[in-house]
Amino acid sequence: MVLERVKQLAQQVSNTVSPPHPLDPLSSLEIEAAVTILRGKYGKLYYNAVTLLEPPKAQMLKWLADPETTPRPHRVADIVVITTDGKVFDGNVDLTEGKVVSWKETPNVQPLITMEDLNAVEQTMRKDPKVIEQCGLVGIPPEDMDKVYCDPWTIGYDERFGNGVRLQQALMYYRPHVDDNQYTYPLDFCPIYDSNKREIIHIDVPKVRRPLSKAPPNNYHVKDIEGNGGYRTDIKPINITQPEGVSFKVQGRTIEWQNFSVHVGFNYREGIVLSNITYFDKNESKARPLFYRLSLAEMVVPYGNPEHPHQRKHAFDLGEYGGGYMTNSLSLGCDCKGSIHYMDAEFVNRAGAAQTIKNAICIHEEDNGILFKHSDFRDDSVIVTRARKLIISQIFTAANYEYCVYWIFHQDGTIQLEIKLTGILNTYAMNPGEDTKGWGTEVYPGVNAHNHQHLFCLRVDPNIDGAKNTVFQVDAAQGPGEPGSPENYYGNAFYAKKTKYTNPVEAMADYNGNTSRTWDIANENKINPYSHKPVSYKLVSREVPPLLPKKGSLVWKRAGFARHAVHVTKYSDDQIHPAGRHVPQTSGEPSQGLPQWIEANPREKIDNEDIVLWHTFGLTHFPAPEDFPVMPAEPMTLLLRPRNFFLRNPALDVPPSYARTPSQVAAGKAGCSCTKDKASVAV
Amino acid sequence: MVLERVKQLAQQVSNTVSPPHPLDPLSSLEIEAAVTILRGKYGKLYYNAVTLLEPPKAQMLKWLADPETTPRPHRVADIVVITTDGKVFDGNVDLTEGKVVSWKETPNVQPLITMEDLNAVEQTMRKDPKVIEQCGLVGIPPEDMDKVYCDPWTIGYDERFGNGVRLQQALMYYRPHVDDNQYTYPLDFCPIYDSNKREIIHIDVPKVRRPLSKAPPNNYHVKDIEGNGGYRTDIKPINITQPEGVSFKVQGRTIEWQNFSVHVGFNYREGIVLSNITYFDKNESKARPLFYRLSLAEMVVPYGNPEHPHQRKHAFDLGEYGGGYMTNSLSLGCDCKGSIHYMDAEFVNRAGAAQTIKNAICIHEEDNGILFKHSDFRDDSVIVTRARKLIISQIFTAANYEYCVYWIFHQDGTIQLEIKLTGILNTYAMNPGEDTKGWGTEVYPGVNAHNHQHLFCLRVDPNIDGAKNTVFQVDAAQGPGEPGSPENYYGNAFYAKKTKYTNPVEAMADYNGNTSRTWDIANENKINPYSHKPVSYKLVSREVPPLLPKKGSLVWKRAGFARHAVHVTKYSDDQIHPAGRHVPQTSGEPSQGLPQWIEANPREKIDNEDIVLWHTFGLTHFPAPEDFPVMPAEPMTLLLRPRNFFLRNPALDVPPSYARTPSQVAAGKAGCSCTKDKASVAV
Repeated sequence: MVLERVKQLAQQVSNTVSPPHPLDPLSSLEIEAAVTILRGKYGKLYYNAVTLLEPPKAQMLKWLADPETTPRPHRVADIVVITTDGKVFDGNVDLTEGKVVSWKETPNVQPLITMEDLNAVEQTMRKDPKVIEQCGLVGIPPEDMDKVYCDPWTIGYDERFGNGVRLQQALMYYRPHVDDNQYTYPLDFCPIYDSNKREIIHIDVPKVRRPLSKAPPNNYHVKDIEGNGGYRTDIKPINITQPEGVSFKVQGRTIEWQNFSVHVGFNYREGIVLSNITYFDKNESKARPLFYRLSLAEMVVPYGNPEHPHQRKHAFDLGEYGGGYMTNSLSLGCDCKGSIHYMDAEFVNRAGAAQTIKNAICIHEEDNGILFKHSDFRDDSVIVTRARKLIISQIFTAANYEYCVYWIFHQDGTIQLEIKLTGILNTYAMNPGEDTKGWGTEVYPGVNAHNHQHLFCLRVDPNIDGAKNTVFQVDAAQGPGEPGSPENYYGNAFYAKKTKYTNPVEAMADYNGNTSRTWDIANENKINPYSHKPVSYKLVSREVPPLLPKKGSLVWKRAGFARHAVHVTKYSDDQIHPAGRHVPQTSGEPSQGLPQWIEANPREKIDNEDIVLWHTFGLTHFPAPEDFPVMPAEPMTLLLRPRNFFLRNPALDVPPSYARTPSQVAAGKAGCSCTKDKASVAV
Repeated sequence: MVLERVKQLAQQVSNTVSPPHPLDPLSSLEIEAAVTILRGKYGKLYYNAVTLLEPPKAQMLKWLADPETTPRPHRVADIVVITTDGKVFDGNVDLTEGKVVSWKETPNVQPLITMEDLNAVEQTMRKDPKVIEQCGLVGIPPEDMDKVYCDPWTIGYDERFGNGVRLQQALMYYRPHVDDNQYTYPLDFCPIYDSNKREIIHIDVPKVRRPLSKAPPNNYHVKDIEGNGGYRTDIKPINITQPEGVSFKVQGRTIEWQNFSVHVGFNYREGIVLSNITYFDKNESKARPLFYRLSLAEMVVPYGNPEHPHQRKHAFDLGEYGGGYMTNSLSLGCDCKGSIHYMDAEFVNRAGAAQTIKNAICIHEEDNGILFKHSDFRDDSVIVTRARKLIISQIFTAANYEYCVYWIFHQDGTIQLEIKLTGILNTYAMNPGEDTKGWGTEVYPGVNAHNHQHLFCLRVDPNIDGAKNTVFQVDAAQGPGEPGSPENYYGNAFYAKKTKYTNPVEAMADYNGNTSRTWDIANENKINPYSHKPVSYKLVSREVPPLLPKKGSLVWKRAGFARHAVHVTKYSDDQIHPAGRHVPQTSGEPSQGLPQWIEANPREKIDNEDIVLWHTFGLTHFPAPEDFPVMPAEPMTLLLRPRNFFLRNPALDVPPSYARTPSQVAAGKAGCSCTKDKASVAV
């Protein structure tokens, strides 16, 4: 019967109009097919992840180069399950062949905490007698337990429990009314939940108790604003329309826009994955490869309060919860404005059924101000050309915080990653007059918002005119010779000092704001004929705080990727997750992911090789009352810019808004207005 | 007769519907009145500047606090002239009283180079026999002198000529055709022009000669693009409309928008000047002062090639040419899109007549993505609110470069300064195969674009809930105690280390990317009742390279303001220009402006005083072929963010795009869609 079902599903898959692109996420049908195969072989399993195992790069590059004659890579599902008796298995199911190709128990790991895992905690917590007792101690009677909430977090790592038991810590809150902002009423104790047993196994109770705050609610919902002076009435609509449609083309999940081509993938872990990014270069009459794959591969949010058990607050939001699993279903005109193309996301649930998040990815264009301009001061001849950008975005909610992720393509070949942080501060209880000791800020009476960092790890798999690339560190440097010396008489000499990284140990590099440090990802085999420098893309990133938890600290051990702003490794198909494949409850001894890979071959050649650059960036957040009860979006951004890649500004052929030459000025002739945008108005 | 004319003008001024705001720029009538008074007293003068002398701050603050009963500050013109025999006079004319109140010769200075000064050079240069001779030597016959162009720059400082003679250096170019981009054909020699004598007095000729390039033109004009593959045809219009009008109100030059109020001034030097910035705080039911005055006060663009005479290329574009004088007349739908309010700029010309630059300032709104969002993972209750921003902008053209200056106001109280660099690289000739030695990049055959920095000096005159403010340096710092120690057992402690600046020497501070350094401008007399910290605005600036020319170098001496990222001085009415009032041909011995002011009283108290913060930021530019023949706009940005200033997110009362509470979700009720923007569409 199982075999019948598999055949039936395979038939359904092949009946679809065109086969999926090898990098397309697994469809619902494919997820169901994989589960059906596993169920037939192994019976009941709790599914943690059923996701695309991307084809090996070598195979994929061959297929991309010649899809007509190269065999299409098989569709393979990458599986994580927990058995009914709590064991973890990792495996692969070849969907093309309809069979399990690997299946192995992985001991001493905990796969990530799914939304279902998270949602299971609150009801159990509310019924637990010891939790009810603790609530009583801080001033909440048993009949009010329906007003008690918790944000379940992975436990990080707690040495008392290790990683043998699957745990969550429940950050506790209270809501006087179901619509009240619970972060105004944090509770001071922290239950620990066993996800397999489905029970509270321990409660961490602080030495100094902090009863429930008696401050009035601090809310942001409509009713509250309307009852408190009302909304601003002076905001007139701004309408953004594209009467002739959008300027991008979608074929399957491949987007073509302004010479760019990019495949938009998505998985439970990294969320958006951009692959096979190329730019059609008019000069070379071909699509030149830029990046094989770009993704946010990991992140960590360490909190800075050293008191137990706050050290456990250092969420790896991607590796421990999944930037895909937590992604929002986006609303038209709210999250994105204008003409929007959406893509859905499909995942497995615990029981093995496929689930869809509608509108998980928003793809749209925006005007982007001036692309370039020049006036000649002699005669007012001028060119002014407006820019636009293509934005591929998602928003995921990690309990209290919202992360808005914007992958932005610019007409000049630049690729930008912008992240906006919004949502609500994680908060902890404090007594009136209590000293925060500098580890946090009282953002509202009784509400202590702890210092924290948001550190993201961008995984850059470059393909700058081919797979063999080299990373150079570039520092602005003063020239030799003091003022008055023959070689630098006026003291003004400066240059770009370039340091080639030849192995992963050399490439473990920190940021240096003082030298405006950037990194060139170059192809030394192809030299720009004008500048005589290798073609390259430059990583320009200015929000690059160091990991503030100290060397040897719990976070430092677990988040090895965050020890440096940049790591470079030789490409390997299985090196996707810089803090390891299974992140929850790793002790950091040894540190998973990047440090392990580098230690395995610290002097491996990485210049003129197929490499991956890992970039950790982010910001350090010292909260203020302005961030509460919901935080105005705080943006951070980084750029990948073509340098010595093109022969000239590749956006010169974008029609100008206005252009008039000196000879037109001299002859009294009008210039050219070449765009079709609706006329603006002077007011 | 003069007296008659003055009376007549005074009558015209008082006949205008309402008197100007005391910070309004001088009108054409007022400029003409000042010139008429001076002409009557001193005869023929060459006018360099006739601009508003802003009222003394003490007087102005009184008037702002109580405009009804406080005497209106007099309108005073601040004057710079050059006499027919080349002497420089500085003076003030009280327009309210119709008389000269100060008049003084200023020896050994050169006032800035006006557009008229610049435009005078090219014709003279073309006729100069020695220039014609040099042109012949590089391959341009005498009959082609109409194809020879020059960008006149101030000479910076050349020790051979000092500052007794008013000089410009002519950076030389050739255009095969009048519409060709001259920066493709730089010439290797550099004539020096005497602005008073109106003749070429010297030519700097390099030891190694570089004949005129024979490369084909590298152009960006319509004809060239159309002849070279044509324009992209796949860009569909994006229309941005505000059918109900804009959300800001303009009264005179005061703009009210989203709780902000700001006076928009403009002068020949700094361009846009924002004054008396307040934010209406609902909680305090009053407009709270933020900044008394914000402006770009100076900038310097040092070039990094140590070979003579390139050290002279270090333009102070504001102090040596004027960010107002060079400003563009903006075009609707080109420079700004949507519903635009323009303001003109009025200046004096050399002869003393008033001149108008139409549409010098653009004021408009833009959608700004998500202002804040939060979803509850339990139930999908959500709030998502879109942001918009108000942009007050200008663009000025400094010979080859365009500087687009955007002062941006955000609904959450943040003020942002964004600058986009575009235009064309300054270029120098090079021989085929010549080694740039790292001081520049060959961006096109025969075109050497030298390394350079753009360093801007933002003058912040804060008024954070009052004039008495204090600056704190804020560094992210690790807590004490190694991992394992009782006070920092898990090693995760970190905090914001604050250092108070008590005198100007302490306050000479560099940027530190490693500590994510920011600066709080605080009012220690007013404490946020929640956080118990002083109300403040935080300067967040991440593009802060150090001045690369060395200590003791010519640029270092002349651009004292650029030696540090931050200086703080006690407020003084006459300290506006951090490189001095008259910048051209200063030797830097002693260094004008900031270093002089600080040296005069290095231990002056600056905490809890009326202070000014000077912030130097910018970027270091190592050119690449992508920047040529016209550069895609490169943005840089900084923020002034309220921290501990408000009791909560001050933008909570912006109507959400969508909001739905947990109780609405539970009851199956729809949420609220509260904005009136035209519906977006899914495509």
